[in-house]
Amino acid sequence: MSVATMNLRDLSFQLYEMLDTDSLVGRDRHADQDRDIYDAILKTAADMARDLFEPHNRKADLNEPTFDGEKVHIIPEVKEALDAYIENGFMGMQHDYDDGGMQLPTAIAMACNAIFTAANTGTMGYPFLTVGASNVLRAYGTDDQKNRFMKPMIAGRFFGTMCLSEPQAGSSLSDIKTKAVPTGGGTYKISGSKMWISAGEHDLSENIVHLVLAKIPGAPDGVKGISLFIVPKYLVNDDGSLGERNDVTLAGLNHKMGYRGTTNTLLNFGEQGGATGYLIGEEHKGLFYMFHMMNEARIGVGLGAVSLGYAGYLYSLDYAKNRPQGRHPDGKDARSDQLMLIEHADIRRLLLAQKAAVEGGLALCLYAARLVDEEKTGPDEAARAEAKTLLDLLTPVVKSWPSEFCLEANKHAIQVLGGYGYTRDYPVEQYYRDNRLNPIHEGTHGIQGLDLLGRKAIMDNGAALKLLIKHMTATMDTARTHPRLAEFADRLDASAQVITRTTQTIAAAMQDGKIRLSLANATLYLDMFGHMVLGWKWLEQALTAERALSENPSDIDRAFYEGKIATCQYFHRYELCRVEPWGNLIASLDDTTLTIDPDCF
Amino acid sequence: MSVATMNLRDLSFQLYEMLDTDSLVGRDRHADQDRDIYDAILKTAADMARDLFEPHNRKADLNEPTFDGEKVHIIPEVKEALDAYIENGFMGMQHDYDDGGMQLPTAIAMACNAIFTAANTGTMGYPFLTVGASNVLRAYGTDDQKNRFMKPMIAGRFFGTMCLSEPQAGSSLSDIKTKAVPTGGGTYKISGSKMWISAGEHDLSENIVHLVLAKIPGAPDGVKGISLFIVPKYLVNDDGSLGERNDVTLAGLNHKMGYRGTTNTLLNFGEQGGATGYLIGEEHKGLFYMFHMMNEARIGVGLGAVSLGYAGYLYSLDYAKNRPQGRHPDGKDARSDQLMLIEHADIRRLLLAQKAAVEGGLALCLYAARLVDEEKTGPDEAARAEAKTLLDLLTPVVKSWPSEFCLEANKHAIQVLGGYGYTRDYPVEQYYRDNRLNPIHEGTHGIQGLDLLGRKAIMDNGAALKLLIKHMTATMDTARTHPRLAEFADRLDASAQVITRTTQTIAAAMQDGKIRLSLANATLYLDMFGHMVLGWKWLEQALTAERALSENPSDIDRAFYEGKIATCQYFHRYELCRVEPWGNLIASLDDTTLTIDPDCF
Repeated sequence: MSVATMNLRDLSFQLYEMLDTDSLVGRDRHADQDRDIYDAILKTAADMARDLFEPHNRKADLNEPTFDGEKVHIIPEVKEALDAYIENGFMGMQHDYDDGGMQLPTAIAMACNAIFTAANTGTMGYPFLTVGASNVLRAYGTDDQKNRFMKPMIAGRFFGTMCLSEPQAGSSLSDIKTKAVPTGGGTYKISGSKMWISAGEHDLSENIVHLVLAKIPGAPDGVKGISLFIVPKYLVNDDGSLGERNDVTLAGLNHKMGYRGTTNTLLNFGEQGGATGYLIGEEHKGLFYMFHMMNEARIGVGLGAVSLGYAGYLYSLDYAKNRPQGRHPDGKDARSDQLMLIEHADIRRLLLAQKAAVEGGLALCLYAARLVDEEKTGPDEAARAEAKTLLDLLTPVVKSWPSEFCLEANKHAIQVLGGYGYTRDYPVEQYYRDNRLNPIHEGTHGIQGLDLLGRKAIMDNGAALKLLIKHMTATMDTARTHPRLAEFADRLDASAQVITRTTQTIAAAMQDGKIRLSLANATLYLDMFGHMVLGWKWLEQALTAERALSENPSDIDRAFYEGKIATCQYFHRYELCRVEPWGNLIASLDDTTLTIDPDCF
Repeated sequence: MSVATMNLRDLSFQLYEMLDTDSLVGRDRHADQDRDIYDAILKTAADMARDLFEPHNRKADLNEPTFDGEKVHIIPEVKEALDAYIENGFMGMQHDYDDGGMQLPTAIAMACNAIFTAANTGTMGYPFLTVGASNVLRAYGTDDQKNRFMKPMIAGRFFGTMCLSEPQAGSSLSDIKTKAVPTGGGTYKISGSKMWISAGEHDLSENIVHLVLAKIPGAPDGVKGISLFIVPKYLVNDDGSLGERNDVTLAGLNHKMGYRGTTNTLLNFGEQGGATGYLIGEEHKGLFYMFHMMNEARIGVGLGAVSLGYAGYLYSLDYAKNRPQGRHPDGKDARSDQLMLIEHADIRRLLLAQKAAVEGGLALCLYAARLVDEEKTGPDEAARAEAKTLLDLLTPVVKSWPSEFCLEANKHAIQVLGGYGYTRDYPVEQYYRDNRLNPIHEGTHGIQGLDLLGRKAIMDNGAALKLLIKHMTATMDTARTHPRLAEFADRLDASAQVITRTTQTIAAAMQDGKIRLSLANATLYLDMFGHMVLGWKWLEQALTAERALSENPSDIDRAFYEGKIATCQYFHRYELCRVEPWGNLIASLDDTTLTIDPDCF
């Protein structure tokens, strides 16, 4: 199939026209970089995605990893693609030059990941985990840990994992049972079982660096007693060579509906007496270290959902432009030629719904990535703090909105193709299956809702939300000066007011001690909040497009910008209208879910 | 797995308490039947579903039919299950005693199908098609055709198919190209290719009776020139024995995302010069014959979607009751025991959303089945005509609402199970994949919307809609006499008013010739209309439950009835609120989808 899985024109629009990412070259960390370099890297990513990642996407789905009791077998194309990814430096995109990285802005790195993930989300699971684990080590590892484990990860010799869940404790990390017994000198004997460990076993790299949450005997109860350990598959000698096999065993592979290219494992630690583990940072602070770095991982999940949605959108768009079928309802003459699918209003609706979700989701995720850059390299303390505040607030939305609504987009892509879309001869059904994971992992949809409404939207008297709305208001004010956009500014304004009111109502109820009741509909609050944020991102895109249209663009660019405005219109009229009924329901403190007796189901 | 896939208590509630199905024994056609007989049949179906259908549901998914170039191979459990199905008379549930049938009411027959389909939708594909084809023959076949083809289908010796689509004409039947050349005496030579033919080839039965849409040379253009033919796999001799192999070839199997147990085929007719076909009824009336019988097939699709949703609901409910995970947001003490999942508000929301969709969908589909009974055996001409009017109006809703929202229910079932739900070790991911077919086949979601808004809701000055609202108003009036239900009557009333207004606006625009604009959002109209109808069915269920509660039921029944009222509350508060924004959008005659230039995507 020669249909592109990501739109580079849109990526460029988001990175440069929306987010002014090239201005980062004015900062010390990126001073020797420029837009040409960024574009060359994006181009390399796109070429590699097309030539090395997309071609085995279906093959990896049809031939998932197998375990013969001794070894995991993965189709060879995965390693070929990842070797090229490593060779071109992508594993260390964001790491320091001194550590062997490319020191790129997060926005550029995330854009590259979007390109690769749209082509093959299964194969990208391995770098996703490796980069996540290496980020933890960068932030909290000792120099020795960085040299021994992180640098080989950046170099792609070692891959990484994040070992949080256990069979009996998925979402509830306070109930993990994996034990870490100190043996002196920062070394521990780790024993326990870890479930859902992606990339937990394979021969794609020389070694696998597991980051493992575990409890030290005598530790406080619950999440306050969790520590974080490095548990390598092979111990690493002082000279960097591999030492003996550690006591980590693959107990089995999970067989998933989608995302089949990434091994997902149950790992047993310490079957032979205890796996050697090295404490990261201080005891009992493991969850803090893990979640501090989780922001980026959660942006990654949201962006992954966007990428799958994007690939489905582009495929179904291409199909709709080239597949003749049927006629208009007012032109049924069977002697006339059939129309292309894209001429039908309902097909366009399905395409617009996808475009709104995936381009809006991309705008959201790259905005979050840009906030990470601002948090890291912003011009002053205030700018960095503001970026952090916005990022903390938005992270559950960035993780969740695409996971829900880009999955819906993938559903629409199948519908555009009709029966063909339901077959494995076309890629869209795989995207749908792959994307179904995203509302589950890295904190379920429901947990993100509790995080947003129970903490982030209301803490400090709702300061973060006020800051967000200040930024939104600036966009609305400017948009109102453009006649075509005033309607959308008003719609967004109305949504923002609903959310402000709803949040105040909930905050007051929380103050009154009605915790369960206040949070009963937190997931719907999350969806509603996400719709508002997407409405903002669409207004910004329309505004950016309107400005560009005034500068006499080429015909191709003109169509591109008009498409942005039309899609803003679609989102505001077709989707943003859901905010008010959601708000009414949430603000009513409805107790339907709390009062029903389990026996009544 | 020992979790039941259908709730017989709910089926009994729907059939007897809601629909008074046992009163049909007062009619000639069912005079020798009684509720005990119906219950015995339902019980047999449930036992067989549990023992013969459910156990190979996953196996059939993992071992889809294969074609070695000569023969299609299907796991043996499928034939074992179907042989028992046939032996117990289920293939002829609705057919006349004289033809070897059981002459059961459609409501009872559909309830049995729901039981079987919830256990194994793939295996049920074969009887679904066979019954559909035999119904066409019952209505329009000659005596000879009935004897030669229909009776062996009722006896289960022959299976059937419906051959409508072609590779280039899926939704657009006016563009089919299959040819039928008369050779005299009602016999034709058929040639052409038919795509998406479920149950198109297998060795499960002695013969396969294909019902094929084709055009006779010189026929009028478009759908007015389509005729319907019987094209058996093997010709049938006058004594009923099989004759020579007909010129029908399996060109290939389609490989689907789900529904894998049912072969889905591309069939070539006439590769050797022409397949022998027999005209059904008159020339050029084929589409009328096919669609006349399509009502029941479409109820079957809706009910199939309900059944898959139901199985997922019951599985996730059982899981939620037995899986400990986490604590309340106001009780985080890690030393306390974990709660069962069902104690969490968001899990209950996911369960209530499923319950609302599947029990509401079941109420809707069985109501439609009951209308079929009323249309067939109603006490007088007026009653029969009224039933037909309601059934015609509701058929697109019955087909589509469950296809959309019980698929959503299956999505929620996965979410309740979390990571486990995403694996093939649990059945819920298969239900989700299986159910994704339903919005596509037997008329796509979009086409049902055009049928509802473009024809059924507005024809005869909206007479059918007025009739429906008259029935709904009667329910509302009674509900208002029950204090707990008055709120829901008001909510339903408001929705009905939105739909009446919206429909009038659209009808006026249609009158003005704005056809494309009026129908641009027909799919959203379908969803909105469906929500109103479901709101009605939930109010009726709540009303029935409230009455039963006043009669001092057992504790178990009390919980069951309270669950109905709670779920009515859920649906009315959480879902029915979507009707107003939908209505506003549709009534605004929004042209976003029509005006966007395809180049702007």
